[in-house]
Amino acid sequence: SGRRSLRRPFATSSGACPGIVGRSYRHVEATHTTEPHFVLRTLHQSWIINFFCNYEESRGNYLVDVDGNRMLDLYTQISSIPIGYNHPALLKLMTNPHNLSTFVNRPALGILPPENFPDKISESLLSVAPSGMSRVQTMACGSCSNENAFKSMFIWYRNKERGQTAPSDQDLSTCMVNQAPGCPDLSILSFMGSFHGRTMGCLATTHSKVIHKLDIPSFDWPIAPFPRLQYPLEEFTRENAQEESRCLEEVEDLIVKWRQKGKPVAGIVVEPIQAEGGDNHASPDFFRSLRNIARKHGSAFHVDEVQTGGGTTGKFWAHEHWGMDDPADIVSFSKKLLTGGYFQRDELQPDKPYRIFNTWMGDPSKNLFLAEVLNVIHRENLLEEVTRSGKALLKGLYELQGQYPNILSRARGQGTFCAVDICDDETRNSIMLKARDKGVILGGCGDRSIRFRPALVFKEYHVHIFLNIFSDVLAQLK
Amino acid sequence: SGRRSLRRPFATSSGACPGIVGRSYRHVEATHTTEPHFVLRTLHQSWIINFFCNYEESRGNYLVDVDGNRMLDLYTQISSIPIGYNHPALLKLMTNPHNLSTFVNRPALGILPPENFPDKISESLLSVAPSGMSRVQTMACGSCSNENAFKSMFIWYRNKERGQTAPSDQDLSTCMVNQAPGCPDLSILSFMGSFHGRTMGCLATTHSKVIHKLDIPSFDWPIAPFPRLQYPLEEFTRENAQEESRCLEEVEDLIVKWRQKGKPVAGIVVEPIQAEGGDNHASPDFFRSLRNIARKHGSAFHVDEVQTGGGTTGKFWAHEHWGMDDPADIVSFSKKLLTGGYFQRDELQPDKPYRIFNTWMGDPSKNLFLAEVLNVIHRENLLEEVTRSGKALLKGLYELQGQYPNILSRARGQGTFCAVDICDDETRNSIMLKARDKGVILGGCGDRSIRFRPALVFKEYHVHIFLNIFSDVLAQLK
Repeated sequence: SGRRSLRRPFATSSGACPGIVGRSYRHVEATHTTEPHFVLRTLHQSWIINFFCNYEESRGNYLVDVDGNRMLDLYTQISSIPIGYNHPALLKLMTNPHNLSTFVNRPALGILPPENFPDKISESLLSVAPSGMSRVQTMACGSCSNENAFKSMFIWYRNKERGQTAPSDQDLSTCMVNQAPGCPDLSILSFMGSFHGRTMGCLATTHSKVIHKLDIPSFDWPIAPFPRLQYPLEEFTRENAQEESRCLEEVEDLIVKWRQKGKPVAGIVVEPIQAEGGDNHASPDFFRSLRNIARKHGSAFHVDEVQTGGGTTGKFWAHEHWGMDDPADIVSFSKKLLTGGYFQRDELQPDKPYRIFNTWMGDPSKNLFLAEVLNVIHRENLLEEVTRSGKALLKGLYELQGQYPNILSRARGQGTFCAVDICDDETRNSIMLKARDKGVILGGCGDRSIRFRPALVFKEYHVHIFLNIFSDVLAQLK
Repeated sequence: SGRRSLRRPFATSSGACPGIVGRSYRHVEATHTTEPHFVLRTLHQSWIINFFCNYEESRGNYLVDVDGNRMLDLYTQISSIPIGYNHPALLKLMTNPHNLSTFVNRPALGILPPENFPDKISESLLSVAPSGMSRVQTMACGSCSNENAFKSMFIWYRNKERGQTAPSDQDLSTCMVNQAPGCPDLSILSFMGSFHGRTMGCLATTHSKVIHKLDIPSFDWPIAPFPRLQYPLEEFTRENAQEESRCLEEVEDLIVKWRQKGKPVAGIVVEPIQAEGGDNHASPDFFRSLRNIARKHGSAFHVDEVQTGGGTTGKFWAHEHWGMDDPADIVSFSKKLLTGGYFQRDELQPDKPYRIFNTWMGDPSKNLFLAEVLNVIHRENLLEEVTRSGKALLKGLYELQGQYPNILSRARGQGTFCAVDICDDETRNSIMLKARDKGVILGGCGDRSIRFRPALVFKEYHVHIFLNIFSDVLAQLK
């Protein structure tokens, strides 16, 4: 393929490939054995470094490694690069001397924001507020966003239980020592296969892989099954509708059961598409019903758009595909939005200041970039591009799946947020490595899926470049 | 005072002052009543904004607000600005075109680090590794640092319990549904008055103020008393030693009790100086004994240096004042280090990759700044400056305390990390507002303390500027 061999003095065994995460604890052990370079041994997680990158030379959809290999990137730093590498609009922003102080002086945003903060928030986050939501809180990362979104739901739920009266003296004294009623036995309902982050509150709602959860204490919170749809969807309409009904019934049963256990469900958290857990989709009907169940039982409804948000499904938010005026009480984000945070409905706003707070509360330099990213999305019609590229990508995957039925199955997606299942984990990893050797970076998810997460600037011709290479890789496997 | 009146169209009531946090839930309610500006109503926490800042015009120890008022800053964005505003060394770094891509392309650091990452880590974090620690893990903020440090301790503890054998099938299946033994009933011992962050794992070890904890579910983890020293220390040697012994005995009792409850203490977490909780100090002896108790009972020892780290106590890490070769198993940091993260001893390194992981794993652009901050600390001998300024500050506080015994008490500190108690909360807030009107920014902590958290470039002559103004404020109160 004309590719230069990778000089990777610091790299781990060749089994390391972006986004490959073995579900089995033992599997992970087996694939990482090479002793890394001295300096890197002093880094905590050196052993999962795939390769070192030259970010200065990377451009658009192409990531360049230290050896100058230029690779078409369909994984984009775990789906966190919105408009490709070194977009001129972002580089230009860095050359404006008035922006320098935003990078050099990170404020305690909650109490001492910069002068231009309201403007930057208006230009950026508020311009993409989900339907029904007028309030936004920035945070530094996805986990902190979900942690604080959960806290908002707990606070809201307890205020509702107290009838908006002040907390009792007992509430105030017990909360200081982690005891009820001050620290109440409330729960968040989540779904099997979900991923909402790895800090301890988030982790109690994450159920995608053993490696995330083993040995970490958790909460006794309810976990509902997420629909396992059969593909192609049009052939399994009845079965899939039944499957979704079954899961929704289970949600209601769990809400009742946990209320009876004395651990009421303060909120339901769900991804519009379960990403880390294997790109599991459900129908708009499923989500509309779920939102209604939450309302019926007095639980808040939190849609986690950390991976789905930012345009990759062809709409800015994946929940827009549900067609609802009132899709959620809280929508959290991070990754492609460059800053973490969440939107919420007015009712979810905590009743007192400092209930949700930390030192940095986000990072205004990320808001600067985000405002420019949104300009570019608008100016370059990137949501339309994503829709067009996504259709071409999915069409190509359907064709390859028809051609290689023993290797590929369950091609699925929305926009360019696509995935396909591989016959087994070993074949998946082999495909991903071969693709990388041909200059394409892919990521895995779930047991044996490949997830496609290109940037929003991934055009139709990039799809065809990818499909040609992917086709070659599959032909070699046959 | 010749000060221009603050134009604060977006500001809250005059009760809002940096760092004032009422301990009482009801108190906070009373001090924030003004309806904020329209745009800010859409921000989640707008009501605690003290004022808007002009960071471009701010320099060194002086923060400038939107009206051009130039204020000597002894709070420095909740102790997170290491070498003052717009330090020339940091501005210069921004003008190097080779650094631009580090800001524009934030990588998934755990798997695809930039080429210069090992060098930057060597130049920065590894050059200040605490004694006995050769491994570092970066994270985005203080809470994520502590959350993942806790997880490392749980993983280490369970591997020890299993005798380093592979987890059982039951471990693997139960952890996916939040149940023991996969999600074990382990605990972290913390101290009353401590602050370790506000995500749910951290929050279970935070016990400083009701406003942080109310209505958030928590873990049944042991909480020990932290010594309440009497001042001046030299007059209460015997009493203070007794008080520290009492707390240490309680720690051991709690470890035994929680083991008997089936919730073994996997780790002890402690701040070298309880900051948010009121600048509570303990002796080096106390910490040495605590570290030994942890070792004796097989618990990991985690020193949280998020607020104390980075030079503000006159040593780079506050725990260096204990004079130990082996002061801790884990040391976490954030704030003045600009990136979050933690150091750990080799034994605490998780046994598998991806057990500690997230998308960003920190932010290389913050490491760039940190490397330069460390150069400046070294070049400008800032730790010596801090020691000198700190002595002058504490001496001044002692004198004022002698002069105003009915207002000030318990002056204490290490380096410039100083505090003084005020007779009551109302007087404290009044002092802080009057100081601000005279051009000095202060922060509160605990019930009724003022904490001093200047940058490392706070020189002896700044101390005298501050003391003169502080003295004027106190004279007016009399």
